Amino acid sequence: MTTTNGVDVEQLGQAIEAITDEPAVGRFAFRATTDWTDALQCVTTIDDFDQAGEQITTRTFEIEGDEPEQILGERTAPNAVELLLAALGSCLSVGYAAHAAAMGIELEELRFELEGDIDLRGFLGIADDVRAGYNAVTCTAYVETDASADELAELRDRVETTSPVMDVIANAVPLETDVVTESRGVRA
Amino acid sequence: MTTTNGVDVEQLGQAIEAITDEPAVGRFAFRATTDWTDALQCVTTIDDFDQAGEQITTRTFEIEGDEPEQILGERTAPNAVELLLAALGSCLSVGYAAHAAAMGIELEELRFELEGDIDLRGFLGIADDVRAGYNAVTCTAYVETDASADELAELRDRVETTSPVMDVIANAVPLETDVVTESRGVRA
Repeated sequence: MTTTNGVDVEQLGQAIEAITDEPAVGRFAFRATTDWTDALQCVTTIDDFDQAGEQITTRTFEIEGDEPEQILGERTAPNAVELLLAALGSCLSVGYAAHAAAMGIELEELRFELEGDIDLRGFLGIADDVRAGYNAVTCTAYVETDASADELAELRDRVETTSPVMDVIANAVPLETDVVTESRGVRA
Repeated sequence: MTTTNGVDVEQLGQAIEAITDEPAVGRFAFRATTDWTDALQCVTTIDDFDQAGEQITTRTFEIEGDEPEQILGERTAPNAVELLLAALGSCLSVGYAAHAAAMGIELEELRFELEGDIDLRGFLGIADDVRAGYNAVTCTAYVETDASADELAELRDRVETTSPVMDVIANAVPLETDVVTESRGVRA
């Protein structure tokens, strides 16, 4: 087994080959269930996903959410827009580690500093001309490696053009919602 | 103190008034630091944010990231695109609880089922015409409440037009990146 950055390069090549041969193998549906607990607190449960239409059940993860006191919460957990930054950092971390391995670049250290600016007048419905989400997101990658500047530039380009969460943030994604009313058990 | 859905409605009104009077109070910068640990694993640390340009330090939260075995990870944690769904669910949970409180709607139960479809040929750089991120995201809200259908429709509309994470997913956000090369301690 040849690993670079802890990534099994042979296995990575086989995965690319398998998905190239049979694109369905690369089709995933990820899922999460968020339960409101009280006030601005909630917990999201993640425990399965689909690959090529087949459901795969895994161990269960729980991610809590809350707002800081400044936004009427109790700061028992990060808030939604902080979780979004965690998603971006996680995505870039996977991207750098995997693409560097494929390119034969060894990483010594890798860290991302992420920031997003938001104007709460959007969320609070105070001003129609203020967007609800982040006005801008910035991310600085700190990389310790022996790779040349050219190799690093190529790595950055590969990561940034193929990062799922960068794509979702920087571009529009079709988002469909629905609301289902559930009646109380005592009635009906 | 009057609370609806655990939200202090008076405090919410005061916050809206304060931010309407002085918009700077509603300006936040959220931050996260993601450290690559090994292979496709990382940990994101969240411990401070800015409000009106003032840094506020809070307790520290850590969010782990990994890929499932099917994407060459060890499934020690959710992956980045699952964290993104958790961010969306957390955001909608806060939105429903807070806007319902402001409207005087009591929620009994509230749950969100989220799903995102992705084609890994984008991430792996196999096909240029396949986007890296989610092709589509769906979210169904299950709401148990005594509110009328009209009130619930109004609540849904308020939440969906003011949800920060819905906005980030459904629309484009300016995203700027930078890469800084750090030299090893032993050299220099």
